[in-house]
Amino acid sequence: MSNASAISPTRADNFPEWYQQVVRAADLAENSEVRGCMVIKPWGYGVWELIQKHLDAKFKETGHQNAYFPLLIPLSYLEKEAQHAEGFATECAVVTHHRLEAVKQPDGTVKMEPTGKLEEPFVIRPTSETIIGAAFARWVESYRDLPLLINQWANVMRWEMRPRLFLRTAEFLWQEGHTAHETSEEAMQEAKLMHGVYEEFLRNYLAIPAIPGEKTERERFPGALNTFTVEAMVQDRKAIQAGTSHFLGQNFAKAANIEFLGRDNLRHHAWTTSWGVSTRLIGTLLMAHADDDGAVLPPRIAPTQIVILPVTPKPDTKDAVIDACEALAKTLRAHAFHGEPLRVHVDKRDIAGGARNWEWIKKGVPIRVEIGPRDITSRSVAVVRRDRGPKEKEFIPKEQFIQDVADILADIQKQLLERATALRDEHMHKLSTEEEFRAFFTPKNEDKPEIHGGFALMHWAGSSEDEDRLQKELKVTIRCIPNGDEYAEEGTCFLTGKPSSRRVVFAKSY
Amino acid sequence: MSNASAISPTRADNFPEWYQQVVRAADLAENSEVRGCMVIKPWGYGVWELIQKHLDAKFKETGHQNAYFPLLIPLSYLEKEAQHAEGFATECAVVTHHRLEAVKQPDGTVKMEPTGKLEEPFVIRPTSETIIGAAFARWVESYRDLPLLINQWANVMRWEMRPRLFLRTAEFLWQEGHTAHETSEEAMQEAKLMHGVYEEFLRNYLAIPAIPGEKTERERFPGALNTFTVEAMVQDRKAIQAGTSHFLGQNFAKAANIEFLGRDNLRHHAWTTSWGVSTRLIGTLLMAHADDDGAVLPPRIAPTQIVILPVTPKPDTKDAVIDACEALAKTLRAHAFHGEPLRVHVDKRDIAGGARNWEWIKKGVPIRVEIGPRDITSRSVAVVRRDRGPKEKEFIPKEQFIQDVADILADIQKQLLERATALRDEHMHKLSTEEEFRAFFTPKNEDKPEIHGGFALMHWAGSSEDEDRLQKELKVTIRCIPNGDEYAEEGTCFLTGKPSSRRVVFAKSY
Repeated sequence: MSNASAISPTRADNFPEWYQQVVRAADLAENSEVRGCMVIKPWGYGVWELIQKHLDAKFKETGHQNAYFPLLIPLSYLEKEAQHAEGFATECAVVTHHRLEAVKQPDGTVKMEPTGKLEEPFVIRPTSETIIGAAFARWVESYRDLPLLINQWANVMRWEMRPRLFLRTAEFLWQEGHTAHETSEEAMQEAKLMHGVYEEFLRNYLAIPAIPGEKTERERFPGALNTFTVEAMVQDRKAIQAGTSHFLGQNFAKAANIEFLGRDNLRHHAWTTSWGVSTRLIGTLLMAHADDDGAVLPPRIAPTQIVILPVTPKPDTKDAVIDACEALAKTLRAHAFHGEPLRVHVDKRDIAGGARNWEWIKKGVPIRVEIGPRDITSRSVAVVRRDRGPKEKEFIPKEQFIQDVADILADIQKQLLERATALRDEHMHKLSTEEEFRAFFTPKNEDKPEIHGGFALMHWAGSSEDEDRLQKELKVTIRCIPNGDEYAEEGTCFLTGKPSSRRVVFAKSY
Repeated sequence: MSNASAISPTRADNFPEWYQQVVRAADLAENSEVRGCMVIKPWGYGVWELIQKHLDAKFKETGHQNAYFPLLIPLSYLEKEAQHAEGFATECAVVTHHRLEAVKQPDGTVKMEPTGKLEEPFVIRPTSETIIGAAFARWVESYRDLPLLINQWANVMRWEMRPRLFLRTAEFLWQEGHTAHETSEEAMQEAKLMHGVYEEFLRNYLAIPAIPGEKTERERFPGALNTFTVEAMVQDRKAIQAGTSHFLGQNFAKAANIEFLGRDNLRHHAWTTSWGVSTRLIGTLLMAHADDDGAVLPPRIAPTQIVILPVTPKPDTKDAVIDACEALAKTLRAHAFHGEPLRVHVDKRDIAGGARNWEWIKKGVPIRVEIGPRDITSRSVAVVRRDRGPKEKEFIPKEQFIQDVADILADIQKQLLERATALRDEHMHKLSTEEEFRAFFTPKNEDKPEIHGGFALMHWAGSSEDEDRLQKELKVTIRCIPNGDEYAEEGTCFLTGKPSSRRVVFAKSY
């Protein structure tokens, strides 16, 4: 392969198409023949397994237990919370029959036709508040049964008209936490706690400095009183909503009848929350870190952190080289990064070295190590970091590499976060006037409609209707009302001129 | 609670109802309002997580990778393999619409009605051979791409008319391995390898001495050439098919067009296998080991292996007791059983000691430890093993308990396997004549139709029609043609008198 980038088009040429090509080149996932449903390939699923492992540990540390609830939701459950039903109605896959019958066709072939019509149709869960609420209503009797802290790892389905691998698919994998509490304060605390867990996970594991904040009324989860979100800026300066946590008040408890006998001996409705992240995180990760050569995986969630590539130009030294590679792999696996044994793979496949090397570049493995016959004699290894150029090869004494490897991984992890933070800070601006705002979101170049300002920090006192109008006109929405003192200051709304005590984040988004 | 058993009815009174009561008393799962779909509660899901963890490690050790494929299968995919389609047709949940519309009812309420009819309906996967086959067809080009060794952890759905928690539910969780190979021999070797993994897992983790063997043609997976099974005998002497592994020949490869360019430069169809176990394992586990006091969990898959119960009769010593319990838990967690830190829980809930103790008995925790004020002074602990009677309490010096705890867990694990093996061997008999066979499977007592002989080892040379007839008459089927030299001997079929060189296992089954 020449000096040209491995991914065509590049990010600068066509960002959305570059993204699709990265997913394909890194062998992470592919479209299936079932419209909107993806196949998550082993490398992509490996990333998801690590995301699951680390988040699951955090959920358990914070007192949650896993459980599993039915895939199918009776229509009558959905109808109980009107806003919720309305919010998901256009995206529901509906099961209406429970068997098939083989019917002979005129041409002699056999076709399967649905039969066994159900009295009440089911939808495939788009989210599980209603079905889990029904279980909570059975489980909760007294305040002693609270808090109830449950999480589910599951697949969900939201029929998508414009699917995009990982970011927006009809079926996706996720976790959904569902909790019930005695008081409003405790439920709010829980929603904020998990919001914090997400923010920290994105920062420390995915190397993404997402902006944590609250959604405006218009952008809330259907049925929630507050929605907290973490909004990541990716390389085309758009926002991705990477995880949300909802304070549901008593809405769902009333709909599902989650009641408890309180300390006052009276019956009360519980206060509930829900919170989730999905395989969308993988799309976010790619859009945040991948480059024109393919995926770039932060070491903490890379299924393979170090790939060792035996260079075997001559048959008579091949065995010695492969032995040296296996020996190094074994040594490295006895070392740890963040308390876990290093994930090391030796790629012994008999294919051209250049093609093999580029496969691992495209997959985004953090460190590539080459060992050839001369390296055995010189006791050195050739090391290339994925966060640097493909030709920035360093020859390092093997013992020193072994000693430093965890530090190198830590440094790659740190570099990725620093780069993403620099990008975010460069393209996040406090603006004052409507004119500035419009200019910020108006593409400078008609051929590149994706190039725009980024995140605009605006004083805001407008209505949901104002938000509607801005979305229609400029394709921008309020991503969040960000946490933190740095956004609290007196000012006037750029659109309405009304007083405002806090800036919000406007952006285009996926 | 008195001397009476915690579960009513007992096993002897009514085995099927006893089973339902054990699932409920141990808080493992419950029926949902979605017919046939269960809610797996945290304790039950905890068992499943451990089953997943250990099996997943074995799959990875044997070279398999996880991936994820669509939940929905187009009808046209099913139609490609006729036997397969026929085999699952009566159990398929069918998705026919992709949105809902709110329709005002005459009484003013709103009902959601299915709309957006799909051109081609989908079924929710009852198993994934067809959809994974379509992916394999895309992935495989040359013999160099083989073997392809993939596993999926997923939910599947088979509409059940007579659901029973864990054992037979409309939705269940499972893993399904799917592999493609260059030769028939390699595929057969894979099917047998995974069959062996299942047998070993049941024995070493679930303490179940299942009989491994092959299915007769009549009992094979729809579309398979060979099905290998592990058949567990449970306490009412019935069989449970606990895991199966299928050699699919080229049937599915031809249906899905999984072709590769061979070493001979010609195109060939691949040889495929599939294999799976499900949450049914949890039902098998309970029916194998639970007793009239509730669940009895083998230590290797118990979410909590040791529960510590503070006995706090007086407020002034309460803190000291709880501190001693927490200190012991911390010490124990630094110990390992089979290379994993001990799973220890301190139950500090403020409820009556008897009720609390019985909760853990019913849940089947392997070891219960009580610590009271006097035990602090005497530096001893009161230990009860779940495999012994609830009153067989031993007072052991604390230091000795800490030293011995892993051995005690190992001994419980061993005892459970020995008991289950003794039960199996007591009720597995070689019979010769049809008369003996009929007597073996005819209940001695009309009130207790479930009490029958167990596993009958019979010489067999009959047809599928003969099997049909025996099933209708006596409700028995051939569970497997067992592996192992001890079943290979010359004889004559008990039904047809034809020569036979091997005995098969007949049993009633779940």
